[in-house]
Amino acid sequence: MKVRDLGEDKLLDLLLPRLLPGKTIAMRLRDDCAVVEMQDCRGLLVLKTDCVVEGVHFLRGTKALDVGWKAMMRPLSDFAATSAVPKFALITLMAPKQTEVAWLQELYRGMRRAAKRFKVSIVGGETSSTPGPIAISTSVVGFVEGERCASRRGGKAGDDVFVTGRLGGALKQKHLRFIPRIAESRWLTNNFSIHAMMDLSDGLGADLPRLARASKVGFKIQMKDLPLTRGAKVNDAISEGEDYELLFAISPRQRDRLVRSWAKKFTRLPLTRIGSLSQPSTKNFQLLPRGYVHFQKPS
Amino acid sequence: MKVRDLGEDKLLDLLLPRLLPGKTIAMRLRDDCAVVEMQDCRGLLVLKTDCVVEGVHFLRGTKALDVGWKAMMRPLSDFAATSAVPKFALITLMAPKQTEVAWLQELYRGMRRAAKRFKVSIVGGETSSTPGPIAISTSVVGFVEGERCASRRGGKAGDDVFVTGRLGGALKQKHLRFIPRIAESRWLTNNFSIHAMMDLSDGLGADLPRLARASKVGFKIQMKDLPLTRGAKVNDAISEGEDYELLFAISPRQRDRLVRSWAKKFTRLPLTRIGSLSQPSTKNFQLLPRGYVHFQKPS
Repeated sequence: MKVRDLGEDKLLDLLLPRLLPGKTIAMRLRDDCAVVEMQDCRGLLVLKTDCVVEGVHFLRGTKALDVGWKAMMRPLSDFAATSAVPKFALITLMAPKQTEVAWLQELYRGMRRAAKRFKVSIVGGETSSTPGPIAISTSVVGFVEGERCASRRGGKAGDDVFVTGRLGGALKQKHLRFIPRIAESRWLTNNFSIHAMMDLSDGLGADLPRLARASKVGFKIQMKDLPLTRGAKVNDAISEGEDYELLFAISPRQRDRLVRSWAKKFTRLPLTRIGSLSQPSTKNFQLLPRGYVHFQKPS
Repeated sequence: MKVRDLGEDKLLDLLLPRLLPGKTIAMRLRDDCAVVEMQDCRGLLVLKTDCVVEGVHFLRGTKALDVGWKAMMRPLSDFAATSAVPKFALITLMAPKQTEVAWLQELYRGMRRAAKRFKVSIVGGETSSTPGPIAISTSVVGFVEGERCASRRGGKAGDDVFVTGRLGGALKQKHLRFIPRIAESRWLTNNFSIHAMMDLSDGLGADLPRLARASKVGFKIQMKDLPLTRGAKVNDAISEGEDYELLFAISPRQRDRLVRSWAKKFTRLPLTRIGSLSQPSTKNFQLLPRGYVHFQKPS
């Protein structure tokens, strides 16, 4: 069997259950970040690694500055999903020998600029030559207070489902320039009880079912309520991916206060209730067009 | 200018000085690991990322189990260099869609086996399809007590220079099966004052000058004293690389006690004094054939 026959979720299912953790750590293998307890530390340690590959996450000819920005911001978006504070980053650069040094300097300038935006220190790096395309792997370490650690689990039937910002059309431009919703996420967990949260990287149609599955509930979305990027269609909002907005579940009892105080705090970023979580009977699972799934054959 | 005209050390020089750290962290950009202070933690946080790329670090046809072992052990060898305890690992897998899933399962089995050897928990992973060769990036996080943190700096003129194990001939087999010297390194810093330490990944000829430069000293090596792997020549020991043995500097006043107690503790692993550090005048810099340097054109 080849990787393309499986898709990313099933591949990780196959590889990850065998990665047995030690007994003392809080495992979040299928969540956006790994969250672990560390001896001699208060709070929880949060770890995330991610990569961008030429020809997959960016096209040849993309500005190096934008590639660097994206390579740093992708794992930081997972920190937003976890409501964690990123602190340190490590970079592995794989590049062919004929790569222009000036291009790499711009790449690092993009990564530095992105890291600085969230006061992240780039503390290490490794380079390797490769016969293949340019690839950058970024690992980020930070922390979260135990009581503010968000995950995909914990959503309850009846919860409101909200998204930040606007969905769809990210592939035109936004996927290279997005700003992880860390400030918004930290504000949310500081002021509200967030039942479940994740960031939208593969499209609502792929990501919302993941949150529902992790929370063992169903969901119901009002398509007409989806906040669309100007020019985007409903199908783009569901399937295109790379929105890097927050998706979260919260008790409807908090709805009024949330909507009011959000509007005051984040005047330029919309917050939209797009539906609710439901009982986990099969008929409550809406069929959504699938978002982008790495590795999978187009069907 | 292309990457191949620079070599890895100069490329990192060019990229890394601009990676400005926050004020509170102990920076070790050019050391084997990044070592940082983290709020709310006793001890220091240690971070390392490394990668193996098909066609560079392993050849097509290499057993997946061996590749996985190497992908995990390379960053762990840097923990040995730092005398740090590794705790958590993150894996980024980049593989073409046509990769056999069974091969990847063997790869992960190799990584798990290696991690288990040092009680490291694999807490996260990411996969991405790539048009290029298989690449695995491994990031490891752990800790070290402030007073036991070893680095390349701190070697003094007059120090003895020791290596563990035997050098040369690693490319035949050992580079896929080596055991990072973490136990030995932890024992060393628990019982002796180690002035400077690193692991030998690029060959003595490339690595010893790095330690000397970081310590601002020269060095003098007795070629006839180099502990050679059976069948290896002096030139292999200097230039071949991938030995993953420890190289360290220690006061000659500790020599007798070190040699005696090492022989009792590690009965099967030789420890050899190969020379000494000297005043940093240019004539004390011995010219060694260079070890393997990534990215550089063969000269």
